[in-house]
Amino acid sequence: MSESKSQRPPSRVDRRSFIRAAGGTTIAAVGGSSLVVGAAQGATPRKWDHEVDVVVVGSGGAALAGAVTAVSRGLKVAVLEAAPVAGGATARSGGGYWIPNNRFMRAKGIQDPREDCIRYMARYSFTQLYDVNAENYGIPVLSVKQMAAMYDNAAPAVELFEKLGALQTREDDSYDYWEAAPENKAPQGRLIWTKVDVAPGTITGGGADTIRQMGDWLAKKGSPIQLEHRVTKLVTNSKGAVVGVIATDSDDKQISFRARRGVHFGSGGFTLNEELRLNFQRGPVFGSCGPMTNQGDLVYMASAIGAKLGNMQNGWRFQLVLDQVLQTPGLATDVWGVIGDSMVMVNKYGQRVVNEKRPYSDRGEVHFNYDPNKNEWTNLVLMQILDQRAYDHAQGHYPLPPKGATAPYIITAPTLDALADAIRKRLTEHGPRIGGFQLDESFLPNLKATIKRFNGFAETGNDEDFARGSFGYDRQWHERFGGPESIAANDKPNKTMYPIADKGPYHAILLVSGSADTNGGPMINENAQVLSIANEPIPGLYGAGNCIASPSGRAYWGGGATIGLSLTFGYIAGNHLATAPINDDA
Amino acid sequence: MSESKSQRPPSRVDRRSFIRAAGGTTIAAVGGSSLVVGAAQGATPRKWDHEVDVVVVGSGGAALAGAVTAVSRGLKVAVLEAAPVAGGATARSGGGYWIPNNRFMRAKGIQDPREDCIRYMARYSFTQLYDVNAENYGIPVLSVKQMAAMYDNAAPAVELFEKLGALQTREDDSYDYWEAAPENKAPQGRLIWTKVDVAPGTITGGGADTIRQMGDWLAKKGSPIQLEHRVTKLVTNSKGAVVGVIATDSDDKQISFRARRGVHFGSGGFTLNEELRLNFQRGPVFGSCGPMTNQGDLVYMASAIGAKLGNMQNGWRFQLVLDQVLQTPGLATDVWGVIGDSMVMVNKYGQRVVNEKRPYSDRGEVHFNYDPNKNEWTNLVLMQILDQRAYDHAQGHYPLPPKGATAPYIITAPTLDALADAIRKRLTEHGPRIGGFQLDESFLPNLKATIKRFNGFAETGNDEDFARGSFGYDRQWHERFGGPESIAANDKPNKTMYPIADKGPYHAILLVSGSADTNGGPMINENAQVLSIANEPIPGLYGAGNCIASPSGRAYWGGGATIGLSLTFGYIAGNHLATAPINDDA
Repeated sequence: MSESKSQRPPSRVDRRSFIRAAGGTTIAAVGGSSLVVGAAQGATPRKWDHEVDVVVVGSGGAALAGAVTAVSRGLKVAVLEAAPVAGGATARSGGGYWIPNNRFMRAKGIQDPREDCIRYMARYSFTQLYDVNAENYGIPVLSVKQMAAMYDNAAPAVELFEKLGALQTREDDSYDYWEAAPENKAPQGRLIWTKVDVAPGTITGGGADTIRQMGDWLAKKGSPIQLEHRVTKLVTNSKGAVVGVIATDSDDKQISFRARRGVHFGSGGFTLNEELRLNFQRGPVFGSCGPMTNQGDLVYMASAIGAKLGNMQNGWRFQLVLDQVLQTPGLATDVWGVIGDSMVMVNKYGQRVVNEKRPYSDRGEVHFNYDPNKNEWTNLVLMQILDQRAYDHAQGHYPLPPKGATAPYIITAPTLDALADAIRKRLTEHGPRIGGFQLDESFLPNLKATIKRFNGFAETGNDEDFARGSFGYDRQWHERFGGPESIAANDKPNKTMYPIADKGPYHAILLVSGSADTNGGPMINENAQVLSIANEPIPGLYGAGNCIASPSGRAYWGGGATIGLSLTFGYIAGNHLATAPINDDA
Repeated sequence: MSESKSQRPPSRVDRRSFIRAAGGTTIAAVGGSSLVVGAAQGATPRKWDHEVDVVVVGSGGAALAGAVTAVSRGLKVAVLEAAPVAGGATARSGGGYWIPNNRFMRAKGIQDPREDCIRYMARYSFTQLYDVNAENYGIPVLSVKQMAAMYDNAAPAVELFEKLGALQTREDDSYDYWEAAPENKAPQGRLIWTKVDVAPGTITGGGADTIRQMGDWLAKKGSPIQLEHRVTKLVTNSKGAVVGVIATDSDDKQISFRARRGVHFGSGGFTLNEELRLNFQRGPVFGSCGPMTNQGDLVYMASAIGAKLGNMQNGWRFQLVLDQVLQTPGLATDVWGVIGDSMVMVNKYGQRVVNEKRPYSDRGEVHFNYDPNKNEWTNLVLMQILDQRAYDHAQGHYPLPPKGATAPYIITAPTLDALADAIRKRLTEHGPRIGGFQLDESFLPNLKATIKRFNGFAETGNDEDFARGSFGYDRQWHERFGGPESIAANDKPNKTMYPIADKGPYHAILLVSGSADTNGGPMINENAQVLSIANEPIPGLYGAGNCIASPSGRAYWGGGATIGLSLTFGYIAGNHLATAPINDDA
């Protein structure tokens, strides 16, 4: 084995920092290591620094699920994480996972028929193609196989982890994100969470607990997460099989790992890599609530050995606070719920564009409507407008600061006229970073008309424009994120709407689109094997989670869809690796 | 040199045919050849079937510009075309090219200042980033270099071809597609055309004439276009340089070509490859007016040797007639102009969504607005609605058939009510191919309200919703595509609008989004050299036109932008190849 010629990294900056490069492109790297891609192919054997059955890259849900499964099958596993902290986007997430037909549903007698569930996934992911009567529902056959694999393996995966003692779970009754789809026969119950045995009232870390439980189990079994080990190179043998990796540590030392059965990636997407966002994403994405390690390393490494990319335009959409994301594209959180009842979200023309209570994934998508008439991303920045009443009720619910505290991104003014002026001023400050985006001159009169119309809807309870509050999800999340005080103070027929006050003060928050992570990358088959340009599995290369082309396409099937897919296809990869032949590293 | 292991093709079907595969995915191949990708790398020299300085792949504008330039510099060139006919998408196009500061403009004294023109390109391509005061206007530095190269080389390229006798051109006064952009100081005159010396009144073939002139010149110089030679493999030497290609002919015979200085691709995009469309394009693209050879061959081949992909979500947008594109995704034409004055184009809710007279590229984009509230591509199918008056005036202007003829895709009914029913029936027929897309129940009442509102605009001449007819382009193209009869019959203040009649019959045409071609692929630098994952030029590999990541990003700068870029970067590639060192094929 010999290494191929060294190639210069596409980006290299200091650890955990990022720069806005001369061209206006934000590029980033982490862990102090350079990204050096390439497949080392040749005939000269070399001494490996370490030798294991399976190398797992990353330490989020997709990675650890693969590691736990492989260890449970008796394999020796090395888990390599680029960042100085474990857990990737999973650790920063709410932490739930979407598991069809899970044991809680079965225990409660909730029916989640296989065929209907697959149809739900198929329709949501490919609305423009779905046909119930067509073979494979009119969508790519590979996607149907992956959706079937999702249904068949999700619950067994979690149940294995529980049986092993690597994860504890609890039930929930959250609604799916397209609860009203006719194919969705089990719109509540698929989302489950990691259970933590702590004193009541203790705040638990959501996804961080998932990582802690699985990571502790792995450490006990002799496969601890090795931090600051950024995998920078795939090593292939003369037949093109992946037989190991080169990792770079924080001192830029290169360490080789032989992987006798293969390498499993759960290394995250490319949501923090502006070059990849600009060249693939379907609209302007400003940043992420994921870690800075989400740089698309696998996109580069797998591309270098001829993998086939897919689903590169899509992502797990969110809304982010503009002022915050311009400070750092890797935020700790995002706007899960747009809080407030006496509240609307409007565009630069003062018009509502979406049901404000729909899931974050849906709200994140409306930012991508391009107006070719005006040559503008009309909804690039959306303005959430609240009156003082809504503000008071929702204090402490992000992005509102707790009582007594202030937040610089909240724009406050005594009147709507003054609020519009203040928003204009703020947008002007940000102008160079947002293409000079500014309110239209029609903003203020339209906003007043929008509020008048909205107030009428609030009185009747019927949002004739966007059906706000008509969905189970809307009401459930409004209560969760708005708080009981807000519900109690609303005597109107639809608790998600209340007339906006005639008198100020008023508040505004500027929102843009972000992604928890992108979910495109090398395509995998239903066994989590990465596919080559020629549609053949690349021996020894597996992936799950956001680093590969997600089986979900453009859809966000429900809360926890991202980690649900991660755990499930990580489990599938681990099982497949257990039966993979020992490869030849020459 | 030895060949790498043969890989199975991603698709293989009979020549010029296409199939709708089991999974509902349309896949296609042409020329009877399989696409076998891979880089052949090794140390064993072999006998080449042919040896030239430069291999040019394709025979559209990008390919032939490279070939003509290279031949003019004294190089020996082989031009290989996959299809049984020459010319690619160029031959099927209107045939104009967007050439800033061209000799006609200079002769007429039209100022087209360099800095302003680059700013126009920069802003149009990256509206969400553009900042006039930022370094590189806030956009990627590579893009600015490419835009500068476009400005600096476009006119010299065409002037070289003219001087050589390889092309004759004529002027025009067409408007750019964002004529009102403040940076656009020369909104008319950049589009020029191929001139043909024929008897007045003779119909000439637009782009086909460009191909004929350049192809004839090349044949005279000993470099004829070799048809049915599909390049299926890049051959690289031990240092990773591209030193030749393997082409597959119609008998599936593999023929090797040594390229002493390099290989230049002008092989077209991937607009006819449904797998690539689904995995990269930003919205549902149904097909193309380009040839079936636009299968993204270079995406696969360059990916196999570690090239970096870019601009994969974008394309040169058009509208296509739904009924036609469902019959064949490779159409001969598209809806250049939406003909008629007493006409509106509406969505499934009976609402207008765009200025119907804006450029095809703009109209093609509005189909991509996703409504997350309803989980639908709201504008997947748009309905062009005409009264009998508009129909009569525009007969013979595509997509209306000539007088006396009929076209099955035109839906006609005596009343609007009956028309809505007939559209519903047609959509139901197409349902399995369009995800069950159907008119909303609000369609008919909304359509009537839309027409009433539009008729008011037609009387005053002021379209308060979409400013139809307020742009130079709108009026110019309305006249060109609507014909003088239509203009003469319109006594209203805005010739692009006329009240729709109270009485039927009415006609409808169903329109969807297509692309002349996609314009993503391997990224190039300002020298037309393909870049590796590590941002370094891959020695010996060049590209221009729609097979590479277009310097235009998401913009369509003006009529002929696609071929203008093709000719210019083909010329740049040819010149760079002339100074490239002779490579080592071992």
